[in-house]
This record gives sequence, C-alpha cells and structure tokens, in this order.
Amino acid sequence: MLEKTIASIKPLESKAMEQAQARLDSLIKPPGSLGELENIAAKLSGISGSLYNDISKRCVIVFASDNGVTEEGISAAPQAVTYIQTINFTKGITGVAVLAKQFGADLIVVDVGVNADIDHPAIQNKKIRKGSWNITKQPAMTREEAMQAITTGIEAVTEAVKKGYKLIGIGEMGIGNTTTSAAILSAITNTPPNQTAGKGAGLTEENYRNKVNVIKTALELNKPNPADPIDILAKVGGFDIAAMAGAYIGAAINQVPVVIDGFISIVAALCAAKLAPLAKEYMFPSHASFEQGYKIAAAALGVTPPLHLDMRLGEGSGCPLMFAIMDGACAMMRDMGTFEQGNIDDEYLEEVRDADFHIRGL
Amino acid sequence: MLEKTIASIKPLESKAMEQAQARLDSLIKPPGSLGELENIAAKLSGISGSLYNDISKRCVIVFASDNGVTEEGISAAPQAVTYIQTINFTKGITGVAVLAKQFGADLIVVDVGVNADIDHPAIQNKKIRKGSWNITKQPAMTREEAMQAITTGIEAVTEAVKKGYKLIGIGEMGIGNTTTSAAILSAITNTPPNQTAGKGAGLTEENYRNKVNVIKTALELNKPNPADPIDILAKVGGFDIAAMAGAYIGAAINQVPVVIDGFISIVAALCAAKLAPLAKEYMFPSHASFEQGYKIAAAALGVTPPLHLDMRLGEGSGCPLMFAIMDGACAMMRDMGTFEQGNIDDEYLEEVRDADFHIRGL
Repeated sequence: MLEKTIASIKPLESKAMEQAQARLDSLIKPPGSLGELENIAAKLSGISGSLYNDISKRCVIVFASDNGVTEEGISAAPQAVTYIQTINFTKGITGVAVLAKQFGADLIVVDVGVNADIDHPAIQNKKIRKGSWNITKQPAMTREEAMQAITTGIEAVTEAVKKGYKLIGIGEMGIGNTTTSAAILSAITNTPPNQTAGKGAGLTEENYRNKVNVIKTALELNKPNPADPIDILAKVGGFDIAAMAGAYIGAAINQVPVVIDGFISIVAALCAAKLAPLAKEYMFPSHASFEQGYKIAAAALGVTPPLHLDMRLGEGSGCPLMFAIMDGACAMMRDMGTFEQGNIDDEYLEEVRDADFHIRGL
Repeated sequence: MLEKTIASIKPLESKAMEQAQARLDSLIKPPGSLGELENIAAKLSGISGSLYNDISKRCVIVFASDNGVTEEGISAAPQAVTYIQTINFTKGITGVAVLAKQFGADLIVVDVGVNADIDHPAIQNKKIRKGSWNITKQPAMTREEAMQAITTGIEAVTEAVKKGYKLIGIGEMGIGNTTTSAAILSAITNTPPNQTAGKGAGLTEENYRNKVNVIKTALELNKPNPADPIDILAKVGGFDIAAMAGAYIGAAINQVPVVIDGFISIVAALCAAKLAPLAKEYMFPSHASFEQGYKIAAAALGVTPPLHLDMRLGEGSGCPLMFAIMDGACAMMRDMGTFEQGNIDDEYLEEVRDADFHIRGL
C-alpha cells in the first residue's frame, strides 16, 4: 500500500524548470546573481509545472506526541510540556504560532500521541497512543503503529492540499524527541550518538552524557535495521517523527513544496527520503539548527539550509522564515523586468553611449 | 565637522537591552532557543530604547555612481548600465526594487555621480561629479569630494529618518564598484587583491586577472594611507562607496538600525566603522555574498550574516530579505506568550502531572 503510494510520486517537471531558467536568465541581472532565490524559483516551477507560483496560502503542520523515553531523564523539560504547548499552539503564543502569523501562514496542529486526553476544536485528534514506549526498554511502537503514523502524516498533508494550501512546513512538539531523532540519525547514518545527540533545550553536561548513553542503550537493545526506515522509526523513533516522515511523502504525492524546520524535522525528512527518494525533490531546507546533529542529517539528505540563525526551538519555527525567502523568489520571478524591458540590449547601449557617455578626466 | 558629528554617536542603551533580554527569557521557549532572532530583538531595543519596535516603515537607499576605472575593462557590463539601471530602479523592475516592494520597503535612489545628466522626479540629484577618475591613473576623487560624498550619505539617511523611516538598507549601483571595493578592502586589511577581488557580475578568467592587476596598479600608484579611511575612499574608492559609508554613519547618528547588503555595501560599512567605531552597533549584516571578498570584510568588521543565498547582485537586494527576518524578531518579542501566560510554571505542571500523566507500558 505505502509502496504503491510512493511509486506514484513524480519527478519534477523538467520542461517547466527549463522555462523557468530561461525566464530567470532573461531578467535584468547577471545570470545566476540572485543565487538561491533563482534555484528556489526554478524548483517551485518544477513542482507545480507553472512558471509563476502563488504560495500565499500556506501552513505549518505541527505533529504533537509524547515519548516514553522521557522516563530516562533525557530532557530539561517535563513531559507535561508537550500537552501544554499543544494547547498553547491554539492560543497563538508559541514561537511557531507567532512566526506563522507574521508570515501569513496558518498553523495546523495534529495530535498523534500526546499523553493526555485532548478534545479541542483546533487540534486534530489522530492519536495513535498516549505516548510511545521507553526505547531503552522496548521498541517505541509496533511496526503497524509506525505505518499508521506515516499514513496519518500523508493524510494530514493531503487534507491541507485539498483545503488549498500551496506550501507546507513541517514542525513538531514532543518532549524527548531530540533523543529519538538522534537515535534514528545514528541508526540511518551509522554515526555514534555523541555526534548525533545535542543538548536539546538546555541540558547540563551530566544530563547530556546520560542522553548519549540512553541512545546507545536503545540502539543496542532494539537493533534497528539500517536499511529499513520503518523499522528504525518503530524501534527508536516516535509517533511525531513517523507522522512527519509521512507528511514529507504526502507533499511529494500531492506535488506541493514542503519546508524542513530544524533537527527533528530534518531527521524525519531523511527518513522520508530513504523511503521515497523522489520525495526529496519537493523539500526545501530552511535554517541550520544549532543542534549538532542537524549538519549530519543535512549532509546525509544532501541539502544546504540558507538561514543561519542558531535557532534550536523546533515546533516548525524556522518554516515561516523560509516562506518569506520563498516569497522573495516568487516576486523576483514574477515582477523583475527583462533585459528588453530594462533597455539593456546592445542597440540601446550603443545609442546611450554615443549620446552622452564618456569619462571626464581631470 | 565630521569628527564632531561622529563624536555625537551614542552607544546602544544597555538598560533597554537588559529589559529586552528579561522579556526574551520570560517567553515560552528554552532561553536563547530562538538564537539570532533574540539577538536582533535585543539590539533593536538597544538602538531605539524601546522594548517593542515597529520597523514596518523602511527603505533601501541606493547610491548610484560611475567609476572611471571601467576604462580598464574590469567589468563584464558596459558603463552605461549604471545610468540605465538607475532609471530602472524608478520603474520598479530591478532586483532590489522588486524585493523591496515584496517586503514593504520603499526605494530611495540617490545619484551621487552617474555619468549622465539625470533629471527625474524619483531620483535625488546629489551628483558630485559625472563619474570618478580612473584609479590606475590618478586618485578617484579629491579628499574634499570624498568628504562631500560622505556628507551626502549622512544627509540622505537623516532626511529619510525625518520622513519617518525606522529601518534602512544600504545599496548601490555603479558599474566597476566591485573593483573599487576590493581596492579599499585590500588597503584597509592589507590583503592582496587576488583575495579581495571576485569575478563580479560574470568576468572571464582573463578579465579577472586584469582586474586584480588593475587593483594592484591603483594601490601602488595612489598609496592610500591604511589608517585613514577618507584617504582610502578618495584615492581608490568611488562616490557610491563614500556616500554609503556616510549613510551608515548617518544611521548611527540618527539611532536607526541599518542593514548591510553584499560585498560593496559591507566594504562601505567597514569604512564607516573605521571612521566611527560606534556606528557598527547600529549595523545588521544580511546575506553572505558569493563575492569572495565579502568574507574578509565581514571578518574585519566582526559580523556574521544570517542569510546564505549565494547572491551577488548588489543594488541592496539582500536588505529586504533581512527586513523580513527582523520582522520575525519583532513579532516574537511582541506576540509570544510568557511562561506564566503559557501555564508552564511548576505549580501548573504538578497539577497536570497528578491529574493525567503517566507513561503506559506494554
């Protein structure tokens, strides 16, 4: 079923990208001089098949879930913060909520496993279970639950696209999920946990050493298969990350651009790309997270984030900032003049030169 | 006169910055987790003296001027392009014009030395002379002209601030000004021209070698005094860069934040900081230009740009993108909830935990 869905993902439309490149090269600027803005514009054309792209209706989807591994004291914040922040998203007072509003994006909150009963009109109830299991003692979830989370992510994006969203950012809320992300990243890239794990939201040195040991223990106990992303997600991941991986796949299926946030978001993107290599073509990195594992994940995924802001909040908070950069790319494509319109052609230059131009010396 | 003006520059208001930091630390996020957004918000408070800052009325000031050194074949574009693009700014079709509009900024175009008669209602006529002299044969301008250009830059910003602009970006248009910028940077930092000069807007290898030799010749002939930024600007600079240096000083005098664009803009910022060290406190870098000298200038100035977009257009085109990032910082400061508002305090956490929270095992 998932395999069939993945097989339906199309590569970017090369003809649209060629047309985009031709227009980019006709704009009054040295070719390539708007750098990544040009690459973004061309990629958006490849995704949509259109030269001009309207990305003004956009959203950040936040997948919220709890992680059993918080029992091991790997986070500076208590587990209850997952629930509280999930509610706070709906109040518009969290980092991503404020930034989404500033940059004209809606926030969609999906509960895939918060350890509390939530009945809230602004929170989609897609709870798989109240928190994953403690990965130092058993797998985080069953393979079936991992599949269910991935499907939930695909469906969340499909539903958003049906509502008219043209650009999607992928965020999360889940105390303990830098630990599960680091475990996944270690499993996928065969990198020791002391390189993939960071200090999250403010760990002490001692707690950091504990976090690294917890990841080691989880990997040794569960032995995830490096070649099987679903096995990795099920054994040492979380409902949030599995759903996010599904969301990236959903974006590719629905042919909409999708923006990666920080560490957790890029680990989910990496899982998605391992499951569905073409999904990567629909992804846009945003900011280079301060969390040390981000670089390893970005290198493994083969993306280079344009924003360097030393951010480490998560939630999807980097996505709206990237939406603004993408707005710039779309404006360039749509509104810049061509050499012809700008009178920068050989004939006109000759005319101007003859009429007026010479350098006056002393 | 200039010395007196420079002496009037105030350092940032430390009390306002402390208050800003206190609010930042009260917001519902791990302390420091919004990275540079937090630094930007605190710096804006230090500049204005206010906790909350409205930077919605903003502009990019573009200083346009010709450079006599274009006679030496150092640019891929003919000199007439300076004039044509100066007119094109007013049509809203250049890179910076489009990006400024996208991000709610006005464009102010100041002619400080375009080699053509311009009588246009949307272009400020502050022409010092129709193009500087060829720096391989003589100084670019007299010391008096350099002073006049600096004063013009200060006045342009002062006038903008009087009109209500609260945030200013500094751009330029001047064929040949990556050559003069590299010459200035070599003189200030004692770095060989093959490291400060880049390929500008698309030079061939052969033309690039010529550009490096032109800069060497200009430095050997004019012998600018490394300790005297005005001497450097006069001997190997241009009216554009001198006016831009003045504009940065003007921003500091008027206590408004000012955004640096790419290579030429940061070389002017470096000149301003050499003349008036406190001016640096009002500056915000935007993007890391693709032009290789940018890194040297940024290191010399001591700034780290947050945007990595491989842009190399100039014009001030990076400034509006940075305005958007700064909008994000202001929104965070203004709209995020505090721990108290977000119910993340110990008492509430205890309550929630007792009521509902425990991890369900297998």
